[in-house]
Amino acid sequence: MTDSPSAPARPAPVTVIGLGPMGLALAEALLRHGHPTTVWNRTPEKADTLVAKGARRAGTAAEAISASPATILCLKDYATMYAVLDSAADALQGRALLNLNSGTPNEARAALDWATERHIAYLDGAIMVPPPLVGHPGSVFLYSGAQQVFDEHRATLTSMGDPRYLGPDPSLAVLYNTALLDLMYATMNGFLHATALVGSADVPAATFAGIALDWFMPAVVTATLTEQAPALDQGDHPGDAGTMEMNLHALDHITRTCVEQGVHSDQPRLMKAIVEQAIAQGHSGKNYLAVHEVFKRPTQPTQPPQPTPPTQPRLPG
Amino acid sequence: MTDSPSAPARPAPVTVIGLGPMGLALAEALLRHGHPTTVWNRTPEKADTLVAKGARRAGTAAEAISASPATILCLKDYATMYAVLDSAADALQGRALLNLNSGTPNEARAALDWATERHIAYLDGAIMVPPPLVGHPGSVFLYSGAQQVFDEHRATLTSMGDPRYLGPDPSLAVLYNTALLDLMYATMNGFLHATALVGSADVPAATFAGIALDWFMPAVVTATLTEQAPALDQGDHPGDAGTMEMNLHALDHITRTCVEQGVHSDQPRLMKAIVEQAIAQGHSGKNYLAVHEVFKRPTQPTQPPQPTPPTQPRLPG
Ligand SMILES: NC(=O)c1ccc[n+]([C@@H]2O[C@H](COP(=O)([O-])OP(=O)(O)OC[C@H]3O[C@@H](n4cnc5c(N)ncnc54)[C@H](OP(=O)(O)O)[C@@H]3O)[C@@H](O)[C@H]2O)c1
Ligand SMILES: NC(=O)c1ccc[n+]([C@@H]2O[C@H](COP(=O)([O-])OP(=O)(O)OC[C@H]3O[C@@H](n4cnc5c(N)ncnc54)[C@H](OP(=O)(O)O)[C@@H]3O)[C@@H](O)[C@H]2O)c1
Repeated sequence: MTDSPSAPARPAPVTVIGLGPMGLALAEALLRHGHPTTVWNRTPEKADTLVAKGARRAGTAAEAISASPATILCLKDYATMYAVLDSAADALQGRALLNLNSGTPNEARAALDWATERHIAYLDGAIMVPPPLVGHPGSVFLYSGAQQVFDEHRATLTSMGDPRYLGPDPSLAVLYNTALLDLMYATMNGFLHATALVGSADVPAATFAGIALDWFMPAVVTATLTEQAPALDQGDHPGDAGTMEMNLHALDHITRTCVEQGVHSDQPRLMKAIVEQAIAQGHSGKNYLAVHEVFKRPTQPTQPPQPTPPTQPRLPG
Repeated sequence: MTDSPSAPARPAPVTVIGLGPMGLALAEALLRHGHPTTVWNRTPEKADTLVAKGARRAGTAAEAISASPATILCLKDYATMYAVLDSAADALQGRALLNLNSGTPNEARAALDWATERHIAYLDGAIMVPPPLVGHPGSVFLYSGAQQVFDEHRATLTSMGDPRYLGPDPSLAVLYNTALLDLMYATMNGFLHATALVGSADVPAATFAGIALDWFMPAVVTATLTEQAPALDQGDHPGDAGTMEMNLHALDHITRTCVEQGVHSDQPRLMKAIVEQAIAQGHSGKNYLAVHEVFKRPTQPTQPPQPTPPTQPRLPG
């Protein structure tokens, strides 16, 4: 019996190189979704559990690559990618390389150049979930580079999570990844600092979280940011509903309250200094979004670090 | 015809002192909800629009206070409150003072002491919305201090928004307010910085916001924080799923990417320095929540610059 044209396509063969915690999770998800999966890792024993689940262990990286139209790479970094592929680039010729290690935008662009010189179709990717969430439909994977490679291998990519194509610039996946982590850390830090501040009056973090996360963050912060994102692109930040000076006053108030309550004050102090930079750069009277204009330019190396004033003792609550 | 016991209570008379943008919004909301409203402001003309809507303008603060069982104060700060109430404290005796100006926790505690000495029932509050949103049922007002005052005047407070009672410590309202603003600024800064980072590759902020705010912030960040708040109160931060060193590595990567892309790097650099402080304070191997322990303590005064060693060689011994 042959497949009718309307039958769902059989899962495509795929190769996974790099079996750290993440590579193992990727290969397992691909096996679960029925892909004939060939694997290679510098330390071969790391493939044992996969072989028990039906994976084929190749003897060399080149042999692994030759087994499939597409190779998924999940190594430590770009330097490791070059080390591993040095002897296997010939095998990749005419095949697709889907690289999921972390790195910088420049490294991703250099990798595309390296691949293009060798006639390798290259797609760069970033994994936005930890290993246990790989293979779930809601787990986002970001991709950038050759759209043709993305389209051709979309079914395979979908077996690992929810694939999102960002554009032909190969650096976009790692750049989005870095920016999302940047946003995540800043938000985490805001929460950890705010809970420390209310904690100075013995308010449990869980109590504060009830107000902060059930109401304030979704309704005020996230909704505001969604509304204001288009204004950022226009670069016009009228201060009708609140000026940079008002924000400076508020951040000064936050900083002084932290000192008064005996909690760490570097973070609000830096936010205040950034608003001062915005005012110094001509954004006086604009709204808070003009801080974006400060962030778009490199840190000026001329600013000496501000000494921290001594903290006041905390009064009993 | 007299009211039957089951009829809804008539809106109580109320006094509003301070008619800046916020005080005006409060008085208007109270008038809209049918409260007989008496007002006073240093600059009397600011009451003109309110008088046209049915408010009664008092000649002095003391006269305004005497007109109602409760006075809502919305002045610039605590110093202004003392200046305005200096000649009116007698009128407040046995009445309720609901103070909504911003300030520090110490200032709120001092205000309760001031009021208690004068036999004034005191409630401190903080308004979590801008003037145009006052009077809407979803607009949160935070209150702390005497619960009896809160309970007794709840109907009046509800005419201005959604009143939340936080506890008897009068500093809680301004402290929560400051912590929520601290969280808001940190999150805004995270977003403005992340959009500047992707903007370095010409990604529009609105495009990034689609991924960041529709999926990443609500599903990953807010959900994570909600889950992790109880762990903060326990103070135990096991690093099974990721250590402080892994976060240091990630923040170093973010900082280097910002430098590579030519965007402002002070904010990720400070986040990295805070993780370094966490490691220096013994939280090596713990998960990221241990940053909370750093934030709970005052910023350590920076080391004074070491004097330049004398050019003369030091004698041994
Ligand atoms: N784990 C996560 O939560 C996560 C999340 C998102 C993205 N990522 C990214 O995914 C990539 C892989 O991460 P990972 O967590 O699986 O572990 P990893 O420690 O970053 O990488 C381990 C892999 O790299 C290989 N490797 C390292 N040095 C090598 C060398 N000189 N020659 C050959 N192979 C070498 C290891 O081989 P051996 O087994 O022989 O040592 C192993 O296959 C990284 O770029 C990471 O940033 C990870
Ligand atoms: N506006 C907001 O979005 C907002 C949001 C939340 C909380 N708040 C808080 O609400 C309070 C009031 O804010 P606001 O925006 O309405 O304006 P504001 O400029 O902070 O305060 C203006 C009020 O203070 C009075 N005032 C100032 N100095 C005075 C003095 N020496 N003697 C007598 N009265 C004096 C003004 O009287 P004159 O009219 O005579 O100058 C006016 O009634 C502040 O604590 C603010 O932090 C405001």
